[in-house]
Amino acid sequence: MARVFEGFYAGGSWKRTAKTFKDLNPANDQLFADVADADINDVRMTIQTAQDAFPAWADLPFTERAAFMLKAADEIDRRKDDLVAAIQAEGGGWFGKGMFEATYVAGVFRAAAALAYAPIGDVMPSEYGKVSMAVRRPMGVVSIISPWNFPAILSSRGFAFPLVAGNTVVLKPSEETPYSGGIFFAEVFEAIGLPAGAFNVITCSRDNIAEIGDELIENPKIKGISFTGSTAVGRMVAAKAGAHLKKCCVELGGKDSLIICDDADMERSAQTANFGAFMHQGQICMSVEKVLVHEDVFDAFLPMFVARASKLKVGDPTTDKSNIIGPLINDKQANQVREQLEDAIAKGAKVELGGGIKGRFVEPTILTGVTPDMLIYQNETFGPVVPVIPFRTDAEAIAIANDTEYGLSSGVMTENERRGLEIASKLETGISHVNCSSVNDEPHVPFGGAKASGVGRHGGRWSMDTFTETRWITLERGGRHFPPMF
Amino acid sequence: MARVFEGFYAGGSWKRTAKTFKDLNPANDQLFADVADADINDVRMTIQTAQDAFPAWADLPFTERAAFMLKAADEIDRRKDDLVAAIQAEGGGWFGKGMFEATYVAGVFRAAAALAYAPIGDVMPSEYGKVSMAVRRPMGVVSIISPWNFPAILSSRGFAFPLVAGNTVVLKPSEETPYSGGIFFAEVFEAIGLPAGAFNVITCSRDNIAEIGDELIENPKIKGISFTGSTAVGRMVAAKAGAHLKKCCVELGGKDSLIICDDADMERSAQTANFGAFMHQGQICMSVEKVLVHEDVFDAFLPMFVARASKLKVGDPTTDKSNIIGPLINDKQANQVREQLEDAIAKGAKVELGGGIKGRFVEPTILTGVTPDMLIYQNETFGPVVPVIPFRTDAEAIAIANDTEYGLSSGVMTENERRGLEIASKLETGISHVNCSSVNDEPHVPFGGAKASGVGRHGGRWSMDTFTETRWITLERGGRHFPPMF
Repeated sequence: MARVFEGFYAGGSWKRTAKTFKDLNPANDQLFADVADADINDVRMTIQTAQDAFPAWADLPFTERAAFMLKAADEIDRRKDDLVAAIQAEGGGWFGKGMFEATYVAGVFRAAAALAYAPIGDVMPSEYGKVSMAVRRPMGVVSIISPWNFPAILSSRGFAFPLVAGNTVVLKPSEETPYSGGIFFAEVFEAIGLPAGAFNVITCSRDNIAEIGDELIENPKIKGISFTGSTAVGRMVAAKAGAHLKKCCVELGGKDSLIICDDADMERSAQTANFGAFMHQGQICMSVEKVLVHEDVFDAFLPMFVARASKLKVGDPTTDKSNIIGPLINDKQANQVREQLEDAIAKGAKVELGGGIKGRFVEPTILTGVTPDMLIYQNETFGPVVPVIPFRTDAEAIAIANDTEYGLSSGVMTENERRGLEIASKLETGISHVNCSSVNDEPHVPFGGAKASGVGRHGGRWSMDTFTETRWITLERGGRHFPPMF
Repeated sequence: MARVFEGFYAGGSWKRTAKTFKDLNPANDQLFADVADADINDVRMTIQTAQDAFPAWADLPFTERAAFMLKAADEIDRRKDDLVAAIQAEGGGWFGKGMFEATYVAGVFRAAAALAYAPIGDVMPSEYGKVSMAVRRPMGVVSIISPWNFPAILSSRGFAFPLVAGNTVVLKPSEETPYSGGIFFAEVFEAIGLPAGAFNVITCSRDNIAEIGDELIENPKIKGISFTGSTAVGRMVAAKAGAHLKKCCVELGGKDSLIICDDADMERSAQTANFGAFMHQGQICMSVEKVLVHEDVFDAFLPMFVARASKLKVGDPTTDKSNIIGPLINDKQANQVREQLEDAIAKGAKVELGGGIKGRFVEPTILTGVTPDMLIYQNETFGPVVPVIPFRTDAEAIAIANDTEYGLSSGVMTENERRGLEIASKLETGISHVNCSSVNDEPHVPFGGAKASGVGRHGGRWSMDTFTETRWITLERGGRHFPPMF
């Protein structure tokens, strides 16, 4: 039984739209929901609603804003099974991925609640004996534009910190995951009685995205923008935000390496590569997209990796919890992966495992013989196809890892932490993990990339910094004299 | 005797250009210097030079980078008279303004040196027992595009913090003030033996600015941009930086109010308005451009303000230290001020003092009867013409102060600090001073505006945050397990 969401959520109630759009399960094309298809007037009204709610929300005692976040976390825990099912049905992911995501999301809210208790500024010395303060204050309405791959995590990471800081929010989830990336949170906040207008969700179909996206950046009442998505769109978002002199944080694509040194634990390395490359079909911005292996352990590593990956069951995850590898989100993504795979094979890459593609289902695929002239070497894949590339020296591994326009995350496997940190320090990525995969997140850390992977950092006080305005405020106490001729 | 600077400064030496351009004294059109007119190839070579110098400069012990800043500060103190004379000759300002600026600049370098000793990151708790660190590291080449009004302060505020953090710098001073905004610093760094290529200065004429400015944003080796100048140009800079996913800090125009409450010290208020409105002919982004006076003290305040302002002597400040009000920087600025003044008078404003304009010299001018339909009410003036506007309630004063696209600074005069802070808290400005004018700066505080006055903050650790890349780095210690099916 498909659900029906005939309205978007603005000002604490559901506003019916003239049209709806279809939200399908990518594993089987079953209808998950009919969803309100908002237009430009709807989004303008919603932004105005968020603006109207701003002063009262910003003026609430911080403990009350924090308490709403804690209540929301508890409510999310209570609805966990629903959220997991929706994440799976809209996104096509494994049951375990849904469980992880739903659990993590409650943690994002608790981290946001905690941050409400952190200092909101500094007291500085003054040359003139003034009382001199740097005080962060909320800005107004912040828009959140979020993606479909981890819809609940990436939406909540976007809005939870700006919201608890006293901003009001308009969230636009991806049209692929409007429920788990948006409507779900409106239901949660409605259930716990969040003040009307503090949190709003606009859903729309692909037809209206360009216009609504622009409005969520360019409307004068929007003061900050959080965008998570592709690098191509992120460049446009950041350019428009710049032209309007607005703060923004854009978190974009990646082409992350896992470097496996000759002294690494091979069992852990194979497990790390397998998880990093194939979790959620590789549809994670920080997925392992290149496994770089020291030549001395290449022959030991490869069969262990292949053996593990070969056990990952492919199939509809909404009907069988043991299906780890679900479909890619849509045909466009599947075609992109197919194109990269065919290009690699045509240019001489060898398929060590997998290679089969049926509709949107792509088998976990491991390639060797991948060279820089192949699409898969440079472009983001966002699918379960990964090259394993040998290297001779740490310097060569670093050079291969850095040979991309992207710079999001990375992993380095070695039993020697000093060596691991030395390699990590030379990787041009915003994130680097020694003895873990590039796929990692915690809600209170600075998450974001260098190069074409983004500008700014999400998470914890870094989100707070981005989505507050720092004011320098002083009290003169008799020490600042003017030149006598004035 | 005019000086000749036939080269720009790149890689620790002076590179001769085919052409030069003329750097004139705006007070008397005398030639101050012939200056190298760099072209697009020159700037590309300079950026490459800065890139080549980056690894070694970033790898120096932080104490050595700090020591260079302290040595530079001492060298600036030693050359103070030269700098003051150049600031006056290029910029047309009062002797006292030059003295203030030269003294302040040495302070910027000392504040930068001090900041090299501050923490460069955080250690965070980890859900998985990892060692989890947020570490800031230098980004590479940072470009600084600086203005002519406080050329030495605004250049050094732009480059000193990124430089001491380990970035290398390409500075482009305004073509109005190429020496005091640029070449002077190259001479200082050359004298103290800064490693070649860490600091570079490109000078160019107006003809080449558009092309060179774009290169200083869009060249792939440029990782961060600091721009101080007009809002119109700042929007373009921020848009281009966004499209290239680069960090930038843009500090732009203002339309700042000084609010004088009925309980304010009238003598201090008149002095504050006089200094805030007329210092450097009002050519300061944070100049007082509206004096808002409670109606109960309006009649007491106005004659005191007029009396003080009437004593400010107008004339060539390079020939007579007692000339406080020098010329505007160029004819374009003088014409803009004339247009605003004529528009105001035509629409019914009353000239309480001044109003005379001879060439680039504008008399300190005080207007009453200014209304929102006048250009001078909304547009930045950047000249010594200021309206005095009565208000009845604090709410009305706040509304008038906020009735502008800008939001840089503000001042509130009152003997009641609580009232002052309450008003300050409602002003939509990045900066607010109780019992002082909007014109204030200290090198270690967050300087910058809201609304159309800019994005980001210059100064102290705020500059450090902008011009470093924060990396999340972890060491896994056995607590992060993968799902067993991987």
